[in-house]
Amino acid sequence: MRMVDLIEKKRDGKELTTEEINFIVNGYTEGSIPDYQVSALTMAIFFKDMTERERADLTMAMVESGDQIDLSAIEGIKVDKHSTGGVGDTTTLVLGPLVAAVGVPVAKMSGRGLGHTGGTIDKLEAIEGFHVEIENDEFIRLVNKNKLAVIGQSGNLTPADKKLYSLRDVTATVNSIPLIASSIMSKKIAAGADAIVLDVKTGAGAFMKTLEDSKELAGAMVNIGNNVGRKTMAVISDMSQPLGFAIGNALEVKEAIDTLKGEGPEDLTELCLTLGSHMVYLAEQANSIEEARERLIKAMKDGSALESFKVFLASQGGDASIVDEPAKLPQAAHVSELPAKESGYVSEIIADAVGTAAMWLGAGRATKDSVIDLAVGLELRKKIGDPVEAGESLVTIYSNDEAELERVKEKLYESIKLSPEKVAAPTLIHTEITH
Amino acid sequence: MRMVDLIEKKRDGKELTTEEINFIVNGYTEGSIPDYQVSALTMAIFFKDMTERERADLTMAMVESGDQIDLSAIEGIKVDKHSTGGVGDTTTLVLGPLVAAVGVPVAKMSGRGLGHTGGTIDKLEAIEGFHVEIENDEFIRLVNKNKLAVIGQSGNLTPADKKLYSLRDVTATVNSIPLIASSIMSKKIAAGADAIVLDVKTGAGAFMKTLEDSKELAGAMVNIGNNVGRKTMAVISDMSQPLGFAIGNALEVKEAIDTLKGEGPEDLTELCLTLGSHMVYLAEQANSIEEARERLIKAMKDGSALESFKVFLASQGGDASIVDEPAKLPQAAHVSELPAKESGYVSEIIADAVGTAAMWLGAGRATKDSVIDLAVGLELRKKIGDPVEAGESLVTIYSNDEAELERVKEKLYESIKLSPEKVAAPTLIHTEITH
Repeated sequence: MRMVDLIEKKRDGKELTTEEINFIVNGYTEGSIPDYQVSALTMAIFFKDMTERERADLTMAMVESGDQIDLSAIEGIKVDKHSTGGVGDTTTLVLGPLVAAVGVPVAKMSGRGLGHTGGTIDKLEAIEGFHVEIENDEFIRLVNKNKLAVIGQSGNLTPADKKLYSLRDVTATVNSIPLIASSIMSKKIAAGADAIVLDVKTGAGAFMKTLEDSKELAGAMVNIGNNVGRKTMAVISDMSQPLGFAIGNALEVKEAIDTLKGEGPEDLTELCLTLGSHMVYLAEQANSIEEARERLIKAMKDGSALESFKVFLASQGGDASIVDEPAKLPQAAHVSELPAKESGYVSEIIADAVGTAAMWLGAGRATKDSVIDLAVGLELRKKIGDPVEAGESLVTIYSNDEAELERVKEKLYESIKLSPEKVAAPTLIHTEITH
Repeated sequence: MRMVDLIEKKRDGKELTTEEINFIVNGYTEGSIPDYQVSALTMAIFFKDMTERERADLTMAMVESGDQIDLSAIEGIKVDKHSTGGVGDTTTLVLGPLVAAVGVPVAKMSGRGLGHTGGTIDKLEAIEGFHVEIENDEFIRLVNKNKLAVIGQSGNLTPADKKLYSLRDVTATVNSIPLIASSIMSKKIAAGADAIVLDVKTGAGAFMKTLEDSKELAGAMVNIGNNVGRKTMAVISDMSQPLGFAIGNALEVKEAIDTLKGEGPEDLTELCLTLGSHMVYLAEQANSIEEARERLIKAMKDGSALESFKVFLASQGGDASIVDEPAKLPQAAHVSELPAKESGYVSEIIADAVGTAAMWLGAGRATKDSVIDLAVGLELRKKIGDPVEAGESLVTIYSNDEAELERVKEKLYESIKLSPEKVAAPTLIHTEITH
C-alpha cells in the first residue's frame, strides 16, 4: 500500500477502505507517513468529504492510536457531554452535579482551557482546596459512591488526533465536517463514554455560524457515535450571545450554584435541563425524556442537586461551604458598571468580543503559559431583546487591574448594540438530532 | 503574510496576488515554508485551479528562484522546442540540424533521460567521441558559427520547480494543468528561450490521454509563454502509437539521419516539418509557415540538413562519418523478429508497453543509476492500419542479453493488437494552438 495512491483515490472522490484508513492513521502516528502527504490528503478530504463508513473508521483508528480509558469498574451507563464551545458556557459545571443527583454516573476527565475563560478544572480551582490530582482507583471509587468525580487528563489519548489537528491548523483544513466530527468523537470514545450527548452551538459566537452547518456537524457526530456502538444525540443551541450572565471563573461557579438551586439565568437553566434530560434518558435513569426532565427539576427544587455539588467538592478536597457562602470565592478588587449611552433594546451581543474583553481582564489564557485570574470577569445585566434605559448598566465588570479597564469598556461598548425598535430574544434550542 | 491564510484563500477559490505567489515560491525554495503547507496548497490548486495571471506569476517566480541562462550573445531569435514526452520520439535529434540548416539558432541544453530510452544526450553519445562537456563560451561560439550546439545541463535552474515537482510526485498533485504548465514553461524560460514551440502529445502513450486534456494543457502553456513575453505556440500530435519506427538510442540516431535525408518514417517526417516550420517562422527566418516548410523540405532534399548534422557532430568531437556509414553506430549482438501469429490489420500498439519492452532490453533507465545499452532497441515493422500476413514480422528486436528476449517478445505480443477488419491510421497532427 502506498500513501500516494490513497491520496489520489480520495482526490478522485473514491471511498477508502477500513484497511486503508488504518494504514494511514497508524503510519502517521508512528511517523512512517510524513506530514506533507497527510496534509495533501486532508485537503482532498476537505473537497471530497468522507462517507459515513469512512468517518466511523477514521474515528476508531484515532481512538486505537493511543490509550483508552476503561470505565467498566463504574456501575451504570457512563454518559459524557460535549460542547463545541462558546462564551460563558457554564453547562458542564451545572450538569455534573445535576444528573449525578438523579443517579447518572459522571466520570469526567477534563483539561485546562485556552481562550476567553478557563476550562472546567480552572473554574473548579476557584474553590479553595479543590484538586483533580487523584489516583485512578480513587476516581472510580468516588464516581461509584457519589456518581460524580473529575480527574485531570492523563495518559496518551488519541495521539493521532493531536498530530492531525496540529497539522490541519496550519494547512487550512480545520474546517472540514468529517475531520471535525471524527476528532471530537475520537476523544469522547477514548475517554470511555458509553453514550454521548452533544451540545452543538450555532450562531455568531460559535465555531459553526449557520444553523445549516451546525446541523451537518451534529448529524455527522451522531452518525459516527451510533455507527461505532455509542448511543449519541445532539442538541443544537444558540450562541448568538453568551449563555447565562457570567463570564469568568469564580463568577461562573457562583452562577452554577444559582442554577443548581433553580435560581439561575433562564437560558442556562433551560439548556441544562434539555441536555441533562437526554443524559438521564441515555443512562436509562428515566423511561422518557419528559420523566428525566421532571426528575431534574425536582432535584433542583428539593436541594439534592446542590447537595450533590457539595459532596463532590468535599470529596476532592474543596471547601463546600462556598456553596452556601459564595462570598468566600475569589473576589475582584474593583467592581464597575457599563452604563448604556442611550435607551433602546439590546439587538446584538457579539459573544467573541465579550469573551475577548473577559480575557483582557485576566479571566482566560491567551497562551498556554498565561496565569488565570479566577476572580475577574463580566456579568451581563442585559441580554438580546431586553429594554434598556440610558444610564442603566449593561455589564458589571469585576477587575483587579484598573489599567485594562478603559480598553475593556471600549470593547464592550463595541460588542453590545442597541436598537430603537423592539427586538425578539433568540431561540435557545434550535433542534435536536437523534438519528 | 501567513502561509496558512494563503492556503485558505486558494482553497476558497480566490486569486492569489503576485506578491503572495512570490512569498510562497521564495519561502518554499529557501525552506521557511514547509512541505506540508505547500502540499496542502497544491491539492487546493488541483481543485480550484489558477487564473492566467496566477499561472504566469508562478512560472516567473520559479524562473527567478535560480540561475537563468543568458543567450544574448547568440545572434537571432532563440527558439526552443519542448515535447511533453512519448515513446520513440526522435524529433529533437532531427529538428536541431534541420532548422539550423535554414538559419535558426539552436542552443540546446539537454539532460539524460529516465524511462523507455535515453535523453537526447544519451542518444548522441551513441556517436563515438561526441561529448557535451563544453565551456559556455565555446557553446555560444558554436551556435553562432554552426547555428547548433548541445550542452549538458549545468547551473541551478528553477530549484523551486525541482522541489515542487518532487513534492507533487508523492502527494498526488502531479496531474494539475496550472502546475504542469508552469513547471514546463519555467524550465524553458530559465534556459533562455526567446520563443517556444510545444509538441503536446495526446493519446494512450502520452501523459494526456484525451484530446480535450491535451488542448487544455497546450492552451495553458501557450498563454503563460505569451503572457510573460515569449512567443509560444503548440502542436497537438498523436501518441496513440510510438512515433516513427525506432525505439532505442543508436536506432533513433539512424532514423534521424534517414529523416534528415527526407527518407524517414512518414509520421516522424511530417511532425518534424510541422514543428520545424513553426520554429523557423517564430525565429523570423521565413515570412509564413508555408514558406518555412518549403525551406525545410529543400534542406532535406539538397543535403544541407544532413550537412548541418555532420558539422554539429564534428564540432563537438563526434565521428561524423557515421552519418554516411551508420553501421559504425553501436550494433546489437542479436537481431530477431516478432512474427505475427495471425493475419489482419494492426489495430493498436500500446506505446507505453512497447517502451517498457525496449527498457527491458537495456535501451532506457529504470533508475538513475542504470547504465544504458546504446545498441539495443526495437524497430516497428508495422504501424496502426497496416495489413499483416501471419508470419510477417511485426517488430525487429535488437538485443545483447538473450535472457530477456522471451519476456520482451511476450510483452510485445501483448502490446500489438490485430483486428480482422480494416483499421484507419490515426491522425498525426490534431490541431495547433497559437492564441
